[in-house]
Amino acid sequence: MKNCLFLLLGVSCVFSVQAQHSLQHYQNVNFSKVQITDDFWKPKIAKVSTVTIPVCIDQTEVKTPRIQNFEIAAGKKQGKFKGIFYDDSDVFKALEAMSYSLKNHPDAAMEKKADDWIDLIAAAQQPDGYINTYYSLQFPEKRWTDMSMHEDYNGGHLIEAAVAYYDATGKRKLLDVAIKFANHFNSLFGPGKRDWVTGHQELELALVKLYKVTKEEKYLRLADWLLSERGHQKAVGYTWTDWKDTAYAQDIKPVKEQKEITGHAVRAMYMYTGAADVAALTGDEGYMHAMKDVWEDVVYRNMYITGGIGSSGGNEGFSVDYDLPNENAYCETCASVGMVLWNQRMGMLTGESKYVDVLEKSLYNGALDGISLAGDKFFYGNTLASMGKQARRDWFGTACCPANIARLIESLGNYIYGSDEKNIWVNLFVGSNTNIAVGGKEVPLAMKTNYPWDGRIEIAIDPKQKTKFGLRIRMPGWVNGEAVPGGLYNFENTAKNNVTVLLNGKAVNYTIDKGYAVIDREWSNGDKVTVDFPMEIKRVYSRSEVKSNIERVAIQRGPMIYCVEGMDNAGKAVNIVLPKTAALTTAKQTVLSEPVVTIQGDATVLTISTNGDDVRSEKKKITAIPYYTWNNRGAGQMLVWLPERIVDVKVN
Amino acid sequence: MKNCLFLLLGVSCVFSVQAQHSLQHYQNVNFSKVQITDDFWKPKIAKVSTVTIPVCIDQTEVKTPRIQNFEIAAGKKQGKFKGIFYDDSDVFKALEAMSYSLKNHPDAAMEKKADDWIDLIAAAQQPDGYINTYYSLQFPEKRWTDMSMHEDYNGGHLIEAAVAYYDATGKRKLLDVAIKFANHFNSLFGPGKRDWVTGHQELELALVKLYKVTKEEKYLRLADWLLSERGHQKAVGYTWTDWKDTAYAQDIKPVKEQKEITGHAVRAMYMYTGAADVAALTGDEGYMHAMKDVWEDVVYRNMYITGGIGSSGGNEGFSVDYDLPNENAYCETCASVGMVLWNQRMGMLTGESKYVDVLEKSLYNGALDGISLAGDKFFYGNTLASMGKQARRDWFGTACCPANIARLIESLGNYIYGSDEKNIWVNLFVGSNTNIAVGGKEVPLAMKTNYPWDGRIEIAIDPKQKTKFGLRIRMPGWVNGEAVPGGLYNFENTAKNNVTVLLNGKAVNYTIDKGYAVIDREWSNGDKVTVDFPMEIKRVYSRSEVKSNIERVAIQRGPMIYCVEGMDNAGKAVNIVLPKTAALTTAKQTVLSEPVVTIQGDATVLTISTNGDDVRSEKKKITAIPYYTWNNRGAGQMLVWLPERIVDVKVN
Repeated sequence: MKNCLFLLLGVSCVFSVQAQHSLQHYQNVNFSKVQITDDFWKPKIAKVSTVTIPVCIDQTEVKTPRIQNFEIAAGKKQGKFKGIFYDDSDVFKALEAMSYSLKNHPDAAMEKKADDWIDLIAAAQQPDGYINTYYSLQFPEKRWTDMSMHEDYNGGHLIEAAVAYYDATGKRKLLDVAIKFANHFNSLFGPGKRDWVTGHQELELALVKLYKVTKEEKYLRLADWLLSERGHQKAVGYTWTDWKDTAYAQDIKPVKEQKEITGHAVRAMYMYTGAADVAALTGDEGYMHAMKDVWEDVVYRNMYITGGIGSSGGNEGFSVDYDLPNENAYCETCASVGMVLWNQRMGMLTGESKYVDVLEKSLYNGALDGISLAGDKFFYGNTLASMGKQARRDWFGTACCPANIARLIESLGNYIYGSDEKNIWVNLFVGSNTNIAVGGKEVPLAMKTNYPWDGRIEIAIDPKQKTKFGLRIRMPGWVNGEAVPGGLYNFENTAKNNVTVLLNGKAVNYTIDKGYAVIDREWSNGDKVTVDFPMEIKRVYSRSEVKSNIERVAIQRGPMIYCVEGMDNAGKAVNIVLPKTAALTTAKQTVLSEPVVTIQGDATVLTISTNGDDVRSEKKKITAIPYYTWNNRGAGQMLVWLPERIVDVKVN
Repeated sequence: MKNCLFLLLGVSCVFSVQAQHSLQHYQNVNFSKVQITDDFWKPKIAKVSTVTIPVCIDQTEVKTPRIQNFEIAAGKKQGKFKGIFYDDSDVFKALEAMSYSLKNHPDAAMEKKADDWIDLIAAAQQPDGYINTYYSLQFPEKRWTDMSMHEDYNGGHLIEAAVAYYDATGKRKLLDVAIKFANHFNSLFGPGKRDWVTGHQELELALVKLYKVTKEEKYLRLADWLLSERGHQKAVGYTWTDWKDTAYAQDIKPVKEQKEITGHAVRAMYMYTGAADVAALTGDEGYMHAMKDVWEDVVYRNMYITGGIGSSGGNEGFSVDYDLPNENAYCETCASVGMVLWNQRMGMLTGESKYVDVLEKSLYNGALDGISLAGDKFFYGNTLASMGKQARRDWFGTACCPANIARLIESLGNYIYGSDEKNIWVNLFVGSNTNIAVGGKEVPLAMKTNYPWDGRIEIAIDPKQKTKFGLRIRMPGWVNGEAVPGGLYNFENTAKNNVTVLLNGKAVNYTIDKGYAVIDREWSNGDKVTVDFPMEIKRVYSRSEVKSNIERVAIQRGPMIYCVEGMDNAGKAVNIVLPKTAALTTAKQTVLSEPVVTIQGDATVLTISTNGDDVRSEKKKITAIPYYTWNNRGAGQMLVWLPERIVDVKVN
């Protein structure tokens, strides 16, 4: 398959997915087959359904004119387009989140709302399949003349929403709209037709989803072609200046020749996710070679300890290697969501645990920080230090993040398990029940855990008949320090920690393969595997190339990164020093009503006299909270990277 | 004159400069008539001639391909254009500085160098008068298709250089090149011809200079027309995105309707300088009304205490009112030079001292900081706080600042005196000798002073015959606190200070008019006026709208703003607190070999223990140096705005 040059040569050849050589090691279990039961994620998913999605609906329909644009385009209302050219995508992303929510928490009123929106969207579609209210209400003659205007991006989110809603409800109406749009796009662009470089990647991965649900190979082919368009200076009619266009949208080099991460972080993540999806289906190893290099460039040189990426606000993306400022970190929530998407695909393609390690880091820290504990407020950027200026917000002018984190949490079940012909893969440790097809049989499986606060995982395996398969349990990189050599972040001591793995209460032989503990045997009803990850408090250090972290330490426990917030520490954080010798202990506490494990430490704290003319150093107990919980009790100072000694003091 | 609508209607009408109603209160005395003799400026001018200009020549000719581009365009060499599209302007600006230098310090070698360059420039000019090596060597067919490409800006600097060189040497060759260029531009653009909005204003003020030297009214008309082109969305073929073009280049509103400062600071300053020049000659009060509002917006809401402007690096210009960050201050040297140019014109147009107050502030602080004491290194931006990252540099990729500060210092004589039919105006206090025409007679005048370190000014007036005129001596705003109500910066106590004014050693009656002390009498040979400004150390406070200066104080003495630099204070500055009660005294010291008055204060200083685990507050004597002298002894911490009490401490 990979030798078939139809894309480059534009000649017709048989594109047979059946005949493909799949690169994929396993396939994730779909969230619809996974019932989440634990105390960490279950309430969060419920909160997204009952709070976050209603917020998205209210903002999309009532507080902003996003739905109104569709009403006007559908001829139901008089008026003009209002908003920004990518606002349609927020409607689609909210619909996608609603779709997952309907599966997790069936809700007739929400389904009615979705159906009403879908009726409007269908009525707003042009006879030829085009759909984009910004253009159709204002400049219909300018359609598809400027690749920077997100017609492709909006279309991609339409497709994702349509596939999700079809999966959730079986209703085809939105799917038919999406198919009509995809066919319209396909009629204009492709080999022998017009060139098009997506201005904000997204359509690629969406077309793969459409291919999977329709089995129409032309969509997969189109996704592959869109990827192949990049890097040849074919960008169409954009209005950007030279400095911005090529690197910003990863259009400098062909995707398969890319070795470094550049430009806008969310664009990059969506592109590589799409490339991984295409590679998985076409067996095209060219994408894989490139993405492995790019991944190392992201993770070894350009990723925050929270799994956040894109340090620079100027381009919402990457700057130079090791440029990871804390207070000015951009770290868009959507980019962390993108890290989850891409690393899931990389894990499936390679079978290597390191990708899931990064997925877990981004998920529990950089991404989860993007939504408030109450589910009603959001961060667009996620800084790693604050003097008190940052505050979670109700909504944003560019509102990509709220619905993005909502759809991620609602579809969390997608990231826990995987399977291939001979193995069941346990990637994330989330209390849940599922049935997984392996070796032609359905195996019921239940996981119980208080992860991420506790390292004990119990997996009950209950096949009706004895079934042979390998149970592959990810051994997280954080157990024994940095998962990858050359990585940015290293633990203080990397003494080998023992992970206890028991089968039915007794020690069991297992092998380690690509970071997974593999128990390959014939399983019987009632089998129980217990894994115990040591949950040590780790002091983490940056490579010295990261200037902003010199002489500073971060605290990690399990996958969770910690921070100190003024709220718990007499109103301040930037006056705290955590000496190398400071004892650190855990405590069970709550942040608002969120039960968490906090870290207590004996720190040196600078205290200012009442009249402001004297400073003293005092030994004080400080409290660090999980990073994702900060800024839920008002704005204030926050620090992830604490100084270990006083190198300088700055008076304010 | 001002009712003549030829510009807007494009109809022909008599444009008679002779018949004009001049708005100008006085005309500055040209630097060529002023011999500077004092210990502050005289050595600086000599250093620019002997160090800075040779640096500019070396960088322009040897270290970068700026002259080489002209050699290639002149057919003397093979090769391609190298550099940036505005590099030609640096050659012209260096030539302008050389011209003034040749007047101050005749130097045959420098004149030979200038003549060689001028030969190249003349040979590089196209037959039709066009001159711009970027286009002529690469894309001759694209000339004048993109207003953002600085063809106009480069041309303006060509004209300024040509006028200066003609004034300095009487040689016409470069002036003829400039005239040919101006005629070429005039043949393409103007009423009834093509529209053109200058992408970087500069040509307007240059055309007024060309008008003054040639007496050809078409150049003045063209300058006025260029100003009238703005604000009507006529910008030609630019490649910028919408967010950048209009506000950035002050193209949102017609110049006469502008009320607020926007966009790129240097563009704004050059534009208003040109508008003031045109208004002075045409009597058009429309520009004046606009500029008075804009000036208040600059000075009351958007100017640093150093007289620097343009706080934001993103647009090299203005952001929102009161946004004046210290550590990230952009404050381009060229923008402070522009403040000197514009405020000089505003002073002459209005006769009001407040404009010269601001000129003086920008000159002695924001602008002078742009060049090292040795004359060989430069700041592009001039921050008001440093953690040690900033360092003066040998040169810049975009090299507008070095030659700009060089030409300003060499032409300092332009800013000291003025005259009208009945008055001599003393604006700056610079030891110097001159002859000033007043009431049809030449009056020799000599000023002696150790300003800015000392407030005593002696002015000897020696007319051959008794001559009646008003001697108008500026009473600086800093003597009695803020010169203008509503201003950004206020002195701690505004108790009225007495300025002593003596005539021949005895008290003399004088009136105050528009901020000038006026002694109107018949003057005789040997008359001596002595003025004594009280040189108190002032504690200065910002309006509370400036967030970055809350609870902070700056120190000023005379026109000089002070800063604390680590170099004088055990290596640090950001650990210094200057309580309200701290005693402040002066001392005569040197910074390198520069004699200055420093300020000593009893401060609270935070001191870190050797092992980095303890901080103490100690009373210590600190030294503040004049702002313009900082960063001459290596990079290090620096602060202009000192905290008065410890509100917060940040550990590093």
